Amino acid sequence: MTQKHNIILQPSGSRGQVEAGQSIRSAARDLGVEIESICAENATCGKCMVLIEEGRFEKYDINSKRENVSPVSNEEAAYFARRPALLKSKGWEVGYVRLSCQCKIQGDVLINVPEESQGNKQIVRKSASNRPIEIKPSVRKYLVTMSPPNLERPIADWERLAKGLETSMQLVHGVDAKIPRWFDLSIDYQCLRTLSSTLREAKWNVTVSVWQDKEVISVQPGYHEESYGAAVDIGSTTVALYLCNLRTGEMLAAESEMNPQIVYGEDVMSRIQYTIEYPDGLEKLHKAIISTLNKLLKQAADTANIKTHEILEMVLVGNSTMHHILLNLHPKDLGLAPFVPAIHKSMDIKARELGIHINASGNIHVLPTIASFVGADTSAMIVAEEPHKQDENWLLIDVGTNAELILGNRKRLVCTSTPTGPALEGAHVEYGMRAAPGAMERISIDEITLEPKYKVIGVDGWNTDHAEFKGQVKGICGSAIIDGVAELFRVGIVDSRGKFRKELESKRIRKGESGWEYVIAWAEETSIGRDIPMTQQDVRQIQLAKAALFTAARTLLKRFGLQDPDKVILAGGFGSFIDKEKAMLIGLIPDCVLDNVYAVGNSAGDGARIALLNVEKRKEIEEVSRKVERFELPTDPEFQNQFMLATSFPHMSEPFPHIAHLIPNRVPDPMAKNFMK
Amino acid sequence: MTQKHNIILQPSGSRGQVEAGQSIRSAARDLGVEIESICAENATCGKCMVLIEEGRFEKYDINSKRENVSPVSNEEAAYFARRPALLKSKGWEVGYVRLSCQCKIQGDVLINVPEESQGNKQIVRKSASNRPIEIKPSVRKYLVTMSPPNLERPIADWERLAKGLETSMQLVHGVDAKIPRWFDLSIDYQCLRTLSSTLREAKWNVTVSVWQDKEVISVQPGYHEESYGAAVDIGSTTVALYLCNLRTGEMLAAESEMNPQIVYGEDVMSRIQYTIEYPDGLEKLHKAIISTLNKLLKQAADTANIKTHEILEMVLVGNSTMHHILLNLHPKDLGLAPFVPAIHKSMDIKARELGIHINASGNIHVLPTIASFVGADTSAMIVAEEPHKQDENWLLIDVGTNAELILGNRKRLVCTSTPTGPALEGAHVEYGMRAAPGAMERISIDEITLEPKYKVIGVDGWNTDHAEFKGQVKGICGSAIIDGVAELFRVGIVDSRGKFRKELESKRIRKGESGWEYVIAWAEETSIGRDIPMTQQDVRQIQLAKAALFTAARTLLKRFGLQDPDKVILAGGFGSFIDKEKAMLIGLIPDCVLDNVYAVGNSAGDGARIALLNVEKRKEIEEVSRKVERFELPTDPEFQNQFMLATSFPHMSEPFPHIAHLIPNRVPDPMAKNFMK
Repeated sequence: MTQKHNIILQPSGSRGQVEAGQSIRSAARDLGVEIESICAENATCGKCMVLIEEGRFEKYDINSKRENVSPVSNEEAAYFARRPALLKSKGWEVGYVRLSCQCKIQGDVLINVPEESQGNKQIVRKSASNRPIEIKPSVRKYLVTMSPPNLERPIADWERLAKGLETSMQLVHGVDAKIPRWFDLSIDYQCLRTLSSTLREAKWNVTVSVWQDKEVISVQPGYHEESYGAAVDIGSTTVALYLCNLRTGEMLAAESEMNPQIVYGEDVMSRIQYTIEYPDGLEKLHKAIISTLNKLLKQAADTANIKTHEILEMVLVGNSTMHHILLNLHPKDLGLAPFVPAIHKSMDIKARELGIHINASGNIHVLPTIASFVGADTSAMIVAEEPHKQDENWLLIDVGTNAELILGNRKRLVCTSTPTGPALEGAHVEYGMRAAPGAMERISIDEITLEPKYKVIGVDGWNTDHAEFKGQVKGICGSAIIDGVAELFRVGIVDSRGKFRKELESKRIRKGESGWEYVIAWAEETSIGRDIPMTQQDVRQIQLAKAALFTAARTLLKRFGLQDPDKVILAGGFGSFIDKEKAMLIGLIPDCVLDNVYAVGNSAGDGARIALLNVEKRKEIEEVSRKVERFELPTDPEFQNQFMLATSFPHMSEPFPHIAHLIPNRVPDPMAKNFMK
Repeated sequence: MTQKHNIILQPSGSRGQVEAGQSIRSAARDLGVEIESICAENATCGKCMVLIEEGRFEKYDINSKRENVSPVSNEEAAYFARRPALLKSKGWEVGYVRLSCQCKIQGDVLINVPEESQGNKQIVRKSASNRPIEIKPSVRKYLVTMSPPNLERPIADWERLAKGLETSMQLVHGVDAKIPRWFDLSIDYQCLRTLSSTLREAKWNVTVSVWQDKEVISVQPGYHEESYGAAVDIGSTTVALYLCNLRTGEMLAAESEMNPQIVYGEDVMSRIQYTIEYPDGLEKLHKAIISTLNKLLKQAADTANIKTHEILEMVLVGNSTMHHILLNLHPKDLGLAPFVPAIHKSMDIKARELGIHINASGNIHVLPTIASFVGADTSAMIVAEEPHKQDENWLLIDVGTNAELILGNRKRLVCTSTPTGPALEGAHVEYGMRAAPGAMERISIDEITLEPKYKVIGVDGWNTDHAEFKGQVKGICGSAIIDGVAELFRVGIVDSRGKFRKELESKRIRKGESGWEYVIAWAEETSIGRDIPMTQQDVRQIQLAKAALFTAARTLLKRFGLQDPDKVILAGGFGSFIDKEKAMLIGLIPDCVLDNVYAVGNSAGDGARIALLNVEKRKEIEEVSRKVERFELPTDPEFQNQFMLATSFPHMSEPFPHIAHLIPNRVPDPMAKNFMK
């Protein structure tokens, strides 16, 4: 019987008995601890370095530690000799640090696996559910050293590569892992075209990139360890691209651009309309987005100092219209009843088919769409937030010109969508502007004096904190618009129906050019030399948007048989900056314990990145998205009725216990007699 | 004994003797030419029409042509009376056109089988192993009737189609068949692009073409029952394309063209050389073959009266060089030691990737290559002949400018190849010409008088059977060249080393312009006004070719541990017309019982068609080809020695029991003292 030794692996603390003579890497795998390797245990990549902490467990003994493991081999010594800077920076001496693929166990030993050597790398998703994301990319690299062909065994280049690759994959993943046999591996046709010359140039020593552990998509001469991928969120307004290292999960560049389609229509409906009206409309929109993607790819690659052909995969998300236009699928049926997409299923399309300039053999993975107005971006949001793994009922809302809503738990998910108009994004508001220096970001109004105070981006504290405050305001950004409307309602300047109460005495309440308004900043406080008011029109815009959003949420809750969700997750830039309490006050989101409302930022972009870094998440969203129940609001008979009621502040038929304390002493509102009864 | 008559069938060129009184259709089948019939020879369907081109071969005689076939029957007359428009449009008069199921043979006759009558609905492979080929195409059509989308179930177009398709597939194959679930089906990206508009145009009633029962590659409005595919054999000299109905197996058109690459080099080595010498060489050769394929596709589609986009798959075979150039893979390593292809494995490549004009979503299936000079055409030959299913040891030889040899049985197959030069195809022989009227096809020499007699295509019997034989010979076709050399040796005009024995007394043996020669036809017998000899140079060419072929066969047999094969299968046009006994006499093929030598015609083309029509054969050849053992002749230490010995007639170290009786009384040859000892 073979002799056994005890080993302990830190930091995981895994321990057990292993056979003498086993390599540390192989022993660690038997104990469930994956250690990195790219070079197929050739002592080349150095990814599997470990630290031999103790040769015996009793106490640290510098002399004993090497007895219990095999001596440093020539190959190991050669590797470390090439990396003096690394050893110096870490303070590791050879012998203390070892290559775990070479170092054999000869006695009891305590081993430390440093972070960079740990396999199954993780990144932590910061959101409503802080949780680690395992790095399991669809593209992996393997070093393959082949024997050259000879007259006795004149086997073709691909078959020799495939056999070498099978061996490398087995060494990296272990013989028990499900590795395809060499004859079941394939190579992308475009990659095959240069295979023979690459192998010879490389002297039969190449790094092979394999997609989904079955298709070879890149063969590079020599040793390369990093793979790159891009995650892209195509918004109607903004296209955001994240360039990631597929091995470590590290984000190397984040680039964004205006969506160039905006010149053909501001929102998705007008772009759909454009493709219907002009025979070449779709082609124009399609080409515009492809060329923007290529521009962003170039920028990101430059930032990360890599070549675009080193980018081996791209994961794309976007609403259904962006999804269709990207794929050159006509979007007209997305805009016409009964509102169906061409396809829900996710797709893998060769980048070259779409003219996207990553590696020509690389794939574009497009996440599944759920409905006509609940697209691949919502799928990405589900990937990021995981409502389908919760016992509680979560309500996810992604707010933009259109809002998508997902409600449910691990057993059931329902979804719907509603147009909300541009107001919530700060557009079509008289003095609206984007969040930039000079923009008001917070507004507060005193319920007795009806005097406002505000905060300006780039200025410390409130305006009233400054003795002299002049010439600094330019406009109102999205979060301040919600604040402003909420405050106008809270102090009673506008009534429950959203109308200005002109009878109130304040010089700030006045009839302006376009109707009644409330002046927040006088001309001398601004850099534009004009008073900045909030107008009746601004209030109306917010009323319509919040009514749509609120009704959609209420409808979903009702269909689900729920009064309130346990958590509300607000995705998108919108959610990140608003005052949640104020949003609830005007009924923008359902009443809920404030601590259970989370703003998670660009959840779709995060989901795209997660799907890029973890291939299992793609399978998961494919299955989940198939089961999401879709509700089209117009089919709900109560929708119009509910919508009209919901334009009021807050919805009169609803109790709002969680924000009732905000409205104690306000000027009496004759319309509010039914409120809070 | 029944009287026999000679018939020639055009355009195949098949010829032979058939019994008097046989119907043309039945006689044609005996010669391997299938003529269509649906009505079971009832003179009803008219599918079996043929044209009686000549009643006698000597000269065109409008009166005689009907004597050699039976008169037009009442049933035939009735059929033609119903089809006046057809006869008029074709310009055919009754009597010239006949129903081959009714028309009996009463004399020698030249028959033209028009395209539309050419059969093979029932695919029976006529070869060494007569056997039926089941029609199991990779592309199948399913009618799918979908429910339109509605607001209550706004499911995407693809998903509704996939669900309907799952149902249709179950109806066609039975619920117990392994049918993928709808969510495991996929649709080719280019096909998806027009899906939504097609479904609406078709009012949700479509015919769906599915590749490998998993990927949708075509969606047509309404009901369509036929699917089409093309099988192509790319020879160095000729490209042959067969357009087939994938449902019935029927061959709808057979088109061929010269390989346009011939202008860049006659044989594969000179084309490889061209790609090495010119940077754009490969691109030129590649584009040339693609454009020829597209031309042939168009012609075949026109013949079959379909559109090229209705062709849903293409199976391609060719030698390794043709294979590489087709796929735009650089062939240089095929021509340089150690002679390895880029890939053995079969491939499925979207037609659009190669610019081949079948349906854009259709696939090009390329059969596996076996070695640098044993290509996908040899794989196709294995598919057609099935040596891997035999208990006996079969030797398959495909002879062209290069010869490929496969030897073995169900347990083991070995292969090799050898250059044979153009002589066996009748090229580079002084008076060589192709098989056409005026060509000698048989030569015999009297061993006492040393006087020759010969047969000429288009002339009955031997030239010596005719009292006056003048001005009818033009040249010597391939089969007569083998005959001629064999006879020169048999009667002792050339010795065992192939040298003319100038000491023999015959006015036909003389010193000509290019050395010693033997005159077969005097100038007055020819239409070219010159004596037609066989020269020392012609004999040398055949010696080199047969030595190469023989040595290759011997080497394989030796490696296999065999003295002789049980059967010899000769593929290619070459094998179909030679006198097997004469070929054995000069040692072109190994000694063997004559009845066990089979000529199987264009086996590679047949194999390509079989692989097109039966997808299981593809898997089979994939596995078989992986197991074939490859021998490169130069690695055999005995090769040069063997080759030199084999240039002699017959190989001196070999006993030739099966042809020994042919050489009894010849003029004593002093070099032959070791022969037959």
